[in-house]
Amino acid sequence: MSDHSPLALAQALIRCPSVTPEEGGALSFLADVLARAGFSVERPVFSEPGTPDIENLYARIGTKGPVLVFAGHTDVVPPGEMDSWTHGPFSGEVAEGFLYGRGAVDMKGGIACMLAAALAFLDARGSDFGGSIAFLITGDEEGPAVNGTVKLLEWAKGRGERFDHCLLGEPTNPDTLGEMIKIGRRGSLTGRLTVQGRQGHVAYPHRAENPIPGLLRLASALIAEPLDGGTAHFDASNLEFTTIDVGNPATNVIPASAKAVFNVRFNDDWTADTLGAEIRRRLEAAAGNTVRFSLDLQPSNSPAFLTQPDTFVDRVADAIQAETGRRPALSTTGGTSDARFIKDACPVIEFGLVGRTMHETDERVAVVDLERLTAIYGRVLEGYFSS
Amino acid sequence: MSDHSPLALAQALIRCPSVTPEEGGALSFLADVLARAGFSVERPVFSEPGTPDIENLYARIGTKGPVLVFAGHTDVVPPGEMDSWTHGPFSGEVAEGFLYGRGAVDMKGGIACMLAAALAFLDARGSDFGGSIAFLITGDEEGPAVNGTVKLLEWAKGRGERFDHCLLGEPTNPDTLGEMIKIGRRGSLTGRLTVQGRQGHVAYPHRAENPIPGLLRLASALIAEPLDGGTAHFDASNLEFTTIDVGNPATNVIPASAKAVFNVRFNDDWTADTLGAEIRRRLEAAAGNTVRFSLDLQPSNSPAFLTQPDTFVDRVADAIQAETGRRPALSTTGGTSDARFIKDACPVIEFGLVGRTMHETDERVAVVDLERLTAIYGRVLEGYFSS
Repeated sequence: MSDHSPLALAQALIRCPSVTPEEGGALSFLADVLARAGFSVERPVFSEPGTPDIENLYARIGTKGPVLVFAGHTDVVPPGEMDSWTHGPFSGEVAEGFLYGRGAVDMKGGIACMLAAALAFLDARGSDFGGSIAFLITGDEEGPAVNGTVKLLEWAKGRGERFDHCLLGEPTNPDTLGEMIKIGRRGSLTGRLTVQGRQGHVAYPHRAENPIPGLLRLASALIAEPLDGGTAHFDASNLEFTTIDVGNPATNVIPASAKAVFNVRFNDDWTADTLGAEIRRRLEAAAGNTVRFSLDLQPSNSPAFLTQPDTFVDRVADAIQAETGRRPALSTTGGTSDARFIKDACPVIEFGLVGRTMHETDERVAVVDLERLTAIYGRVLEGYFSS
Repeated sequence: MSDHSPLALAQALIRCPSVTPEEGGALSFLADVLARAGFSVERPVFSEPGTPDIENLYARIGTKGPVLVFAGHTDVVPPGEMDSWTHGPFSGEVAEGFLYGRGAVDMKGGIACMLAAALAFLDARGSDFGGSIAFLITGDEEGPAVNGTVKLLEWAKGRGERFDHCLLGEPTNPDTLGEMIKIGRRGSLTGRLTVQGRQGHVAYPHRAENPIPGLLRLASALIAEPLDGGTAHFDASNLEFTTIDVGNPATNVIPASAKAVFNVRFNDDWTADTLGAEIRRRLEAAAGNTVRFSLDLQPSNSPAFLTQPDTFVDRVADAIQAETGRRPALSTTGGTSDARFIKDACPVIEFGLVGRTMHETDERVAVVDLERLTAIYGRVLEGYFSS
C-alpha cells in the first residue's frame, strides 16, 4: 500500500513539473489516488481560441448530500532561476523540517493535505458516511484562468452536480498556520485616465495647454480622501495609481496629452458601477471647466464578495483552533483567487498553508504544517458529516 | 548691375536649399554680393567631433569704430511635407503680395533686408562713412549651434575684432511689423525629478511603497505658487512639466519609481543656481520625511540676460516708429536665439520680420514688410553713423 501521508503526497505532486499550462502528471497522480479510494473521477479538457487547452479534474465519492467540495489547482508559477534554489524546485526534497519546491504552499501542499484528510476519513468511516466529498481541481489558476474553474463549474452544473459548501486550499496564513481564513475578497476596478491638452513650445506656454497640471490635479483628487472606512468584514477600499505616462522626450515641448492608470480594490460598500460613479464625480469636481479628461473603466470579473460567517465558517474555525490553539481572523484581504468563481455555486471559504514563500525562490512548507493542516481538514470532515 | 532689392536678395537666398547643416550656396551668394560692395569677407569653417562641419561668414567694411554688426543665420529648418506647400519651399515664388519659402521670415528675409540696407547706405555715403559695418552670419543656428556663432565670435575676437553694437535680424514681431524689439531672453533650466518607492502587488499596498502619490505631491508643490511676479523687463518665470513617465504595463503592480521632467524659463530675478536652490527648497518642504526623491538639474547655456535700454535701443525704436507708426514693445519673451552668445561680445538687440509662419508649411513674408524692414535698418545705419 502506498504512503498516504500528506508529505508523501505533496512530494509526489511537487515532482510533477506542472507549470501552467502543463499538466505535468499532477492531475494523473491525483486521479489515480482518488480512483483507488473509490472516487469516480472525470478529466475534462477545456479549450478556447487563443489560449492553451487545459486539463482539469472532478472527483466525487457518495451520491447524496450534503456535498462538501475541496477545491484547488495543481498548476504552479514558473520556478525562475533554477540555480538559485537551495533544493531543486521539482525535487521535493526535505531539509531541516521543510519540504522545498514550487507549489509547496501554493498549492500542491494544500491539495496533499485535503487528499490525505479525505483518504484517512474514508478509511475510518467507509463510503457510507452520510453525504458526498468532491474534488474540484484545475490546471489553470496561475494562468489566464479561462479554461479552468469557470468552465469546470459550468461543466459540473450541466451534469447536475450541486454543492453545499466549498473549502479552497489556497495559502491564506501570512506567517503562522491558523492565523487567517478568507471569507471573501475585494473587487477590482481598473481605470485609465487621459487628460487632453494642446502641444506647444515651453517658451510660449500661452499658445499651448499643458495637460500635466490637470493630470496632477485630477490624480491628486482621486487619492485625497479615502473611498470609505471599511465595512464589517472588509478593509477600506484602496486606490493605487500604477502608472503615469506622457512619453515626451523633448524638454522644450509641452505635450498634447497625459495618461494615468489606477486600480481600486473595493469592498462590499460598492459595486463596480457605484464606485465608477464616485470616481467620475471626484474627477469632474476637480476638473471643473478647465481640465478636459476622459476615463475608461474596466471592471475585472471579480466584484467584491463575502461568504457570510455561519456554522460552516464556525466549524472550520473550530477545527483550526483545536489544532493550532489560534482562533483565525475572518479576512477579506489580499489578491483574487478562484473563490471569486466558486462563490456563485455555493458558499466558499479559503484556508490553507502559510503563504510567505509563495511565488518565490525556495518556496517551502514546514512538514509539521502539512500534518496540522491535514488534521484540520480531517476535523472539518468529521464535523461536517457527523450529523 | 544685379538687383539689390530686398525681394530679389531674399528670393536668391531662399533658392539655396540650406537646411542645417547644408550651406546650400547661401553663404557663397552673400559672400559674392558683399565682396562686390567692398567688404572683406572671410568664410571660416568650424568642426567638433560628433557634429557636422559648418560654414560661417564674417564680412566687414571700414577700419575704424564704431562697429555695428548685423547678425543672423542662413540655415533653415527642414521644409517638412514638400507637397503641402502652396509654393515650393525653395522656389522663392511671390503670390498675392507674399514671398513664399523656407526661411522667408526665419531669417533669410531678415538677412536680405540687412544686406539691401547696407548696400544702399554704402551707395549713398561711400566707404568713408565714419565707422565699420560687419556681418556675422552662421549656418548653424537651427542645429546644434556648436559650430556657429559661439565659435565665430571666438574666432573674431582672436583676430582682434571688437564690436560696439549688434542688431540680430530674427523674426521678433508676433503679428505686425513694428510691434516688438527683443532686448533680452529668459534663461532655461531643465530638471529631472525621480521619486523612489518599493515595488509590490496592488492587493498588498502595505507591503509596497507607491512612488506616484509622492510624485503628485512634489510636482504639485512645484507649480502651486508662481516663482516670481516678473521684473521690469521680464515676464514672470514659468515652470512647465514636459513629461511624467513610470512605464509600468501591469495594472496589478505598484511601480518602484516615477520620473518627471520640467523646464523653467526664468527671468533676471534668478540665476540657474538660485533658482535650483528654490526648486530644491520647495521639493524638500513637500517631501518632508515621507517622500524619497532625487533631482538632477541641467542649466542650459542660456542664462537670463538683458541689454539695458539705452540710446542704441532708442535709435532702433525711433527708426521703427518712423517707418511703421508703431512704438515697439521692449520684450524679453520667447525662445532662445544666438543673442545669448553675442551678448558677451557687445550689446545686442533683435528686430526682424513677423514670425507667425516660421517653421511652418507656407512660411511667407509680405513683400511690403521686406521693404519696410530694409527702410528701418537703413534709418538705423543713417542714425548710427551720423555723428
